[in-house]
Amino acid sequence: MKRYLLAPGPTPVPPEVMAAMSAPIVHHRTPEFSALFAEVERDLQFLFQTTQEVMTLAASGTGAMEAAITNLLSPGDEAIVVNGGKFGDRWTKICAAYGVVVHEIAVEWGEAVEPAAVLGALDAHPAARVLLMQATETSTTVLHPVEDIAALTRERETLLVVDGITAIGVLDVPMDQWGVDVLITGAQKALMLPPGLGFVALSARAWEQTRRARLPRFYFDLARERAAVTERTSAWTPAIGLVVGLRAALQLIRKEGLPQVFARHARLGAATRAGVSGLGLRLLAPRAPSPAATGVWVPDDVDGAQLVRYMRDEMGVTVAGGQDRLKGKIVRLAHVGYAGAFDVVVGIAALEMALSRFGHRVRFGQGVGAAEAVLEDGWTRCRS
Amino acid sequence: MKRYLLAPGPTPVPPEVMAAMSAPIVHHRTPEFSALFAEVERDLQFLFQTTQEVMTLAASGTGAMEAAITNLLSPGDEAIVVNGGKFGDRWTKICAAYGVVVHEIAVEWGEAVEPAAVLGALDAHPAARVLLMQATETSTTVLHPVEDIAALTRERETLLVVDGITAIGVLDVPMDQWGVDVLITGAQKALMLPPGLGFVALSARAWEQTRRARLPRFYFDLARERAAVTERTSAWTPAIGLVVGLRAALQLIRKEGLPQVFARHARLGAATRAGVSGLGLRLLAPRAPSPAATGVWVPDDVDGAQLVRYMRDEMGVTVAGGQDRLKGKIVRLAHVGYAGAFDVVVGIAALEMALSRFGHRVRFGQGVGAAEAVLEDGWTRCRS
Repeated sequence: MKRYLLAPGPTPVPPEVMAAMSAPIVHHRTPEFSALFAEVERDLQFLFQTTQEVMTLAASGTGAMEAAITNLLSPGDEAIVVNGGKFGDRWTKICAAYGVVVHEIAVEWGEAVEPAAVLGALDAHPAARVLLMQATETSTTVLHPVEDIAALTRERETLLVVDGITAIGVLDVPMDQWGVDVLITGAQKALMLPPGLGFVALSARAWEQTRRARLPRFYFDLARERAAVTERTSAWTPAIGLVVGLRAALQLIRKEGLPQVFARHARLGAATRAGVSGLGLRLLAPRAPSPAATGVWVPDDVDGAQLVRYMRDEMGVTVAGGQDRLKGKIVRLAHVGYAGAFDVVVGIAALEMALSRFGHRVRFGQGVGAAEAVLEDGWTRCRS
Repeated sequence: MKRYLLAPGPTPVPPEVMAAMSAPIVHHRTPEFSALFAEVERDLQFLFQTTQEVMTLAASGTGAMEAAITNLLSPGDEAIVVNGGKFGDRWTKICAAYGVVVHEIAVEWGEAVEPAAVLGALDAHPAARVLLMQATETSTTVLHPVEDIAALTRERETLLVVDGITAIGVLDVPMDQWGVDVLITGAQKALMLPPGLGFVALSARAWEQTRRARLPRFYFDLARERAAVTERTSAWTPAIGLVVGLRAALQLIRKEGLPQVFARHARLGAATRAGVSGLGLRLLAPRAPSPAATGVWVPDDVDGAQLVRYMRDEMGVTVAGGQDRLKGKIVRLAHVGYAGAFDVVVGIAALEMALSRFGHRVRFGQGVGAAEAVLEDGWTRCRS
């Protein structure tokens, strides 16, 4: 059975990247690897739109999130968390593990945070050292207004820490221009790699803050990692094969061009939403949809968990279900990373056939046709 | 840009086969390779449904066709050729190159040969040593009635030579049971390999005939090759990497099961025809359609060559155009080998959008919907 990976991470790996990673492993303490590492660093800065060092950690995204906490805070410090989903909640949990006091901005699942709510929290907790949020909350397929929030934190002492794991390489998050203090991403989304790398970059004032931060850290000591990066190496053994793949992936992104990459994701998101709506289904996040993945309410007459399992096991199409309180209630179709027009077509076609199989009334082709109208309209702008 | 290979050869190679072929090359005069070769030979006999040796040649399918001619015939011998397309025509050309006298049964392109016409030719040319035909004529996407014709040749001296290049592993052609005298296939269709291997098996009476055949031959000397096969090796250097891939491909076919493989191809063909018809397009071979590929007349208001080029270069979807007299007039959507339900969906969706782009009126989703109805209906019978 042919398999299609349409989940919001891990995402499919392009053949060019697979081929690069199948080359023999080089040693990491060699001029060859140093040159590779320097090239990757330059391209990561291009991707993050920053002049700061981007640290590449042998860890998944959660490791980079933890690094942000432990490198910026001290025991008993206060943090504001935008919590509108499973990944917002993860910020709270990491803080709890390290004795950081959390002030949560609770956001309804499926909604974006209101900048006014952030402003209120910043005013209410002026001692908060950091504001922790996601650029896109993958569990609810919501896009949060990072630019508006950065405009608030720029004027304050509170640092803005953005989990951009399903956002960097998907949509425009110009770190330096917006004044994001810490920006994080992972390998297995827009970077089109197998999981195993986390990335983090810090603003000048965030680096300043690390010097006062007393939470315990060793593997994720970012100052040590930054010193290594300036020596064109890493503090600890790097995930060599993944870094080799990263070079190939970043080359693909540079070749396509960042504006084109962002436009492609926007187009695939719009097509997916059109397809889902064409089927008469309701979007989970209609007001602030992420261009990386689209959440859809499963109709009441269908069991979402069964639907996802059927699509995966019988059709070979892996989509994501809901997490935590959304379990069994939604499906999430991803369109992030190595994704093109026909991934949307496959996803919507699979959804049509699977819904029909579970007794939900579907007119075959209705959703796909609505998606095609969006895809065809913008084809020359979105060659993918 | 993501690429989709929907041409009737070469066809996509499954990841399992790619992985197998990326192992280090073994030497071919070793016990290791002999064991591999013997395993492959056993599985090829299973695939050909024969107890005869199946010879694996380092050549493409045309090489195996030539081998059939040079091993069975002498200068001046007569042959009957079923010529209803580019590949039927190839039989005539090979015969001409070797001074074999050809009696052609001219078949209209898009039609299957009538057994009555074959009967007439056999009666008219009783001295003909061979009847040369295709099981499926890939250029016109026609399925010829091999079983009916074998019933005629079984009773006569004329040997039946069947080019099964786009048929073996697609539909049931039980060589021994039907009494096919020579059966041929190639690597790059249902066997899901890169091109470079040709396969040929001979019946007992065909082997008998080789002893009287005086056409010159060396590389394609099948008696020599057969002697090597019984020694678990090949006469000349085999295409080692492809043979390694062949083992993996044959394992996939065995695992799926021949009846399931045939049913899958039949279902994908039916879905493709439903999709094309749902778009209001005319089939090239409505009466005897091949389960390997579907030919479609391009509407008069569209240039077929431009359409194919647009789909390939702008959409990343490679379909085949027409050959020779059908050039620019048809497109051919393949559903052979490593093909599943969503390849049909992608092919029809791409066709819908491309036709629209060239100004042909299309209701998006109409073709895909018609295909989905066939695919969904038979999903549990056709898990692919």
